[in-house]
Amino acid sequence: MGGDFAPQAPVAGALLALAELPAPLEIQLVGPTAVIESQLAALVAGEFALLAHVRDRIIIVEAPDVVSMTDKPAAVLRSKPNSSMSVGLRRVAEGHADAFVSAGNTGAQMAASTVLLKLHAGLTRPAIGTIFPTAHQPVLVLDSGANVDCSALELVQFARIGATYAQDLLGRSAPAIGLLSIGEEPEKGNAVVKEAHQLLLQSGLNFIGNVEGRDMATGTCDRGPIDVVVCDGFVGNVLLKFYEALAPTLIGMVASHAGLDRRELRRGLHQLDADEYGGAPLLGVNGVSIISHGKSSPKAIKNAIRVAQRAHDSDMTAHIRRRLAESVPESNIAPPGTAA
Amino acid sequence: MGGDFAPQAPVAGALLALAELPAPLEIQLVGPTAVIESQLAALVAGEFALLAHVRDRIIIVEAPDVVSMTDKPAAVLRSKPNSSMSVGLRRVAEGHADAFVSAGNTGAQMAASTVLLKLHAGLTRPAIGTIFPTAHQPVLVLDSGANVDCSALELVQFARIGATYAQDLLGRSAPAIGLLSIGEEPEKGNAVVKEAHQLLLQSGLNFIGNVEGRDMATGTCDRGPIDVVVCDGFVGNVLLKFYEALAPTLIGMVASHAGLDRRELRRGLHQLDADEYGGAPLLGVNGVSIISHGKSSPKAIKNAIRVAQRAHDSDMTAHIRRRLAESVPESNIAPPGTAA
Repeated sequence: MGGDFAPQAPVAGALLALAELPAPLEIQLVGPTAVIESQLAALVAGEFALLAHVRDRIIIVEAPDVVSMTDKPAAVLRSKPNSSMSVGLRRVAEGHADAFVSAGNTGAQMAASTVLLKLHAGLTRPAIGTIFPTAHQPVLVLDSGANVDCSALELVQFARIGATYAQDLLGRSAPAIGLLSIGEEPEKGNAVVKEAHQLLLQSGLNFIGNVEGRDMATGTCDRGPIDVVVCDGFVGNVLLKFYEALAPTLIGMVASHAGLDRRELRRGLHQLDADEYGGAPLLGVNGVSIISHGKSSPKAIKNAIRVAQRAHDSDMTAHIRRRLAESVPESNIAPPGTAA
Repeated sequence: MGGDFAPQAPVAGALLALAELPAPLEIQLVGPTAVIESQLAALVAGEFALLAHVRDRIIIVEAPDVVSMTDKPAAVLRSKPNSSMSVGLRRVAEGHADAFVSAGNTGAQMAASTVLLKLHAGLTRPAIGTIFPTAHQPVLVLDSGANVDCSALELVQFARIGATYAQDLLGRSAPAIGLLSIGEEPEKGNAVVKEAHQLLLQSGLNFIGNVEGRDMATGTCDRGPIDVVVCDGFVGNVLLKFYEALAPTLIGMVASHAGLDRRELRRGLHQLDADEYGGAPLLGVNGVSIISHGKSSPKAIKNAIRVAQRAHDSDMTAHIRRRLAESVPESNIAPPGTAA
């Protein structure tokens, strides 16, 4: 039930995903059963008639409550225990599902994922990782909005998490990690960034130093291609929204200047289309939780489901947990069975 | 002598500016006399022969030292008292020039401007104001890199300074001020931004609330067009460099996709050309100091000189000083003649 175009977009996206992903993969649609059933029936009878054969790989999971965009994120689990958000994430927490995808209230998904799936040992907050298309290759940017005020240690955690994601989902070996700043030199940046720079030098990661705003557009810097850019969630979120609005704005200006068809041009430049990337994983929790844009189209939902599937199949969550455990001094981890 | 293409670009830019701006306006070129004279002679004998008539409105001011991009900003005034930076700004401070323009070391220009021109009463730091072209009208963004860690009070000072600049140089009446954040609601943002939001509500400015990254691309939000965006210099600088690199990147991608000539397209979309805006004023000091990009072309220098001329003619500096003074409780301003 999440997102501006629910239930149509999530249901249609599920049908599209099943058409691309082979059995035995199944999709559980979580929400008010009657609403989902009638939406499914309408799509299969109409626009998606050719996908009728995948209908039997859809399971409906009843969840009568609906989280709205104005619900207070931290209160959703308690106030709406039977929302599609709460029920869906509980399926993952209890092992009845392998991954969760939503285009609903981002704050609520973050809060509920943190409570139900739990953070990895050594982490204080999860991070949202988004993909920025560049002139070179796509770059993973984190955090893109989960944490507005970050400590230097948290930025280092984002780097570890991001390195694993880039390896498992983007296929980058020894991912090159850049720290977003306002100059290449270690002494450039705000207080937190300068401290994080020193910590990253000792992190054992493939840290290539500070990168600047321009390097995020080109995807490369004078030390080579960039795989991961680490920043706090305030800067990351501002940049993400700026990019999302600027790309179509610029394409529109070019189209009208050159007398080209705007839509045709956008289709041609599909690598700039946010729908191609579908969803941003909430990284740092014990389970796959993919955050999709509120404005997600069926295609975006389909691609978010593909991200979820790759995250599960690559065992990303376990890899992140292991990488974080290796980096934490043993004395900081409670032995199994003891209280945290 | 400042910038990657000095002395050619500044000298050529001065000739171009004089051709557009009527007498009695004169330009003082500050640097090693012999170098400037030979550059002037070469340009007037060759490419700029048609501008030979403006040569007598150029005065050369001897300054033998040259500030490099690696010089420590804070030390330049002491270590190189006879650099073009130090000598040029001293001309303004002592009333022998009305404005200063440089494409040299930004940090050095900031530090030297602060020491020689002095900050307005009530200010703790100057700010750099840059123009972002948008789908709507150009928007002034400040701070774009002078201050990496800002307090809420400093963000409010930037808003006051920016409002005056938008009025005097962009011709906006009652400029609409937005505070950059990650959501429209007052409770969205990092700690400093949330505090600044409350202070701005009581500032007497035309504060339209938080704006987001996407609003900086469109130049408007659901509360109307935006004239000024306030942010700290870390975020502002990252965004500025991202934009500067992304616009040509996207135009290049469109050009190669649509089989268009890249240069032709960039010329056509001149509103996206940073050279059109020329220079960013260092705001908050008692005098006009315009910071140009290190990569400034002659055209960019010419436009920076035009920004300087408009700043001087509109009496922007006095207006900013007055607006700041009105906003500071009287007890905070020392009476004339007493020590600060």
